[in-house]
Amino acid sequence: MAARRKNRLSLEEYREGILNGDRITLGRAITLVESTLTEDREMAEELLDSLMPETGKSIRIGITGVPGVGKSTFIESFGTLLTGHEHKVAVLAIDPSSRKTGGSIMGDKTRMEELSHDPNAFIRPSSTGTTLGGVAGRTREAMLLCEASGFDIIFIETVGVGQSETAVHGMVDFFLLLMLAGAGDELQGIKKGIMEMADGIVITKADGDNLKTAKKAKQEYQNALHLFPTNESGWYPKVLTCSAMKSQGLTEVWELIEKHHKALYQNGFFDKKRKDQQLQWMQDAIEHQLIVDFYASEQVKGSIDRITSDVLAGNTSPGKAARDLLRHYRNH
Amino acid sequence: MAARRKNRLSLEEYREGILNGDRITLGRAITLVESTLTEDREMAEELLDSLMPETGKSIRIGITGVPGVGKSTFIESFGTLLTGHEHKVAVLAIDPSSRKTGGSIMGDKTRMEELSHDPNAFIRPSSTGTTLGGVAGRTREAMLLCEASGFDIIFIETVGVGQSETAVHGMVDFFLLLMLAGAGDELQGIKKGIMEMADGIVITKADGDNLKTAKKAKQEYQNALHLFPTNESGWYPKVLTCSAMKSQGLTEVWELIEKHHKALYQNGFFDKKRKDQQLQWMQDAIEHQLIVDFYASEQVKGSIDRITSDVLAGNTSPGKAARDLLRHYRNH
Repeated sequence: MAARRKNRLSLEEYREGILNGDRITLGRAITLVESTLTEDREMAEELLDSLMPETGKSIRIGITGVPGVGKSTFIESFGTLLTGHEHKVAVLAIDPSSRKTGGSIMGDKTRMEELSHDPNAFIRPSSTGTTLGGVAGRTREAMLLCEASGFDIIFIETVGVGQSETAVHGMVDFFLLLMLAGAGDELQGIKKGIMEMADGIVITKADGDNLKTAKKAKQEYQNALHLFPTNESGWYPKVLTCSAMKSQGLTEVWELIEKHHKALYQNGFFDKKRKDQQLQWMQDAIEHQLIVDFYASEQVKGSIDRITSDVLAGNTSPGKAARDLLRHYRNH
Repeated sequence: MAARRKNRLSLEEYREGILNGDRITLGRAITLVESTLTEDREMAEELLDSLMPETGKSIRIGITGVPGVGKSTFIESFGTLLTGHEHKVAVLAIDPSSRKTGGSIMGDKTRMEELSHDPNAFIRPSSTGTTLGGVAGRTREAMLLCEASGFDIIFIETVGVGQSETAVHGMVDFFLLLMLAGAGDELQGIKKGIMEMADGIVITKADGDNLKTAKKAKQEYQNALHLFPTNESGWYPKVLTCSAMKSQGLTEVWELIEKHHKALYQNGFFDKKRKDQQLQWMQDAIEHQLIVDFYASEQVKGSIDRITSDVLAGNTSPGKAARDLLRHYRNH
């Protein structure tokens, strides 16, 4: 058996630390679930399975918005408001920038200085590396660990410019879109479809000279949302304004989230959504791994460039190309 | 070698018939590519590969809208307008209803009576059955056959209530959304995100008492579209009104499509989009088949119910469940 590395605890140590709310152990356990080493994965699985009964008892909130919208400032102020009301708040991030170009959105923990020193808060900067289910898989497991550790409000943060919003939307109870008031083109940069996923929209920086524009934007977005169909759950998304700097409007945001939670809990959609998300997670993880294994196989690697060129040159139909590649893959 | 069935032609007969624009042979060839028999699939692959150089020279138009919006009437009038201008028009359908409940949208060819008797039109009702790449895979191959047969305008029709719009959007040059004018809630029934995929929106039935409402709806939608980000291609979606019954506004729809085609052709996005779609098709087909094979395997079938129950009961994390199922699958 391989010698255990220094930084690893025993299963029981992870478990006890997490259940006791020890943030250092929680951080280490998240590192464990992020690991791609077989030994670590096995322990992570055992740990997660043993903690499953302690999970699920939080409100999971997705937060997205373009860079510059003020996500950090919002989470800092909003999180501090919540810890002041006896909540325990965890902040996680899905960071697509680690796979592409651009800076990490969560690389600098100090950008939420107050919250990061709050004993009732836990902030986890995003990390690189992949595991089963991709970035989303890791974040979901980290979320479960936070819940087992007693955090009753989980923020999952992402930038509103990539694929990650759909992943975040698929793992939270409430999806919050932060927007800047602008001059009609304020949706520039927000990926198509994101507005339609929102359970709530908050216009940030609604203070000083910006207040009037923010109120106008609020009305515009509320009108635009009227054009979208109602959610299956019966929830009607609402637009609010806030100033995180001046701590204005934050209580209203929390009231909106609580109202949403109550409504969906009562009509059964909360439970339904959670169960659907669990199954979706399982399916996503399976599909992700099947596809990763396919493209990583030597048979596929050895022929995909040639076959792709044939498709782009119009010599092979994409359907036949797919069948050819699958034949190569199966013949290993 | 198995005796060839009566309805099957030789490869050369299919090929010649298609290239000569014979609609009977074209119809039979589409039946061939829809077949799931290994022998048919092999011939279909050979046929498609040999015809690839003759494909791609059409404008591919996706048309969607809720039942009742008047898709058939629109396509009938619009198609007749186009054949009157020396175009050859093919109408295909992606019909999700064949897999779920609800009537087939294309089951009755006679609903486009005029167009179906037009020697320059070809109408293909949707069929059931699946093959590599799912419903979308079949329709894409049928589209290529129509192109090889000289059809320079292809309509791909779908109902705007399911998953199929994304598939259609991924295989066409222009995505047209038909909408009814209503009283503010006219988007009810249109799935989220569909409006954002549209290159053009046409308010149908803009005649008689309905004309005023239609014009109002046009303005509302045009305003709503302003809130969405511009397409990567630089194309700005436009809203039009039409009356298919009175043949009003149809020329404008065609001008819009031509304008779009010209703009994207000139800035290189037409070619880029087509190539991206080819690769996406190949990837979709691969992923679809990997997933189908997984869930069809005896190993997975034998354990998925139990594992799913464990996930829903909260006893197993979805990530571990996925890994367990993948282990079962690999150990066959």
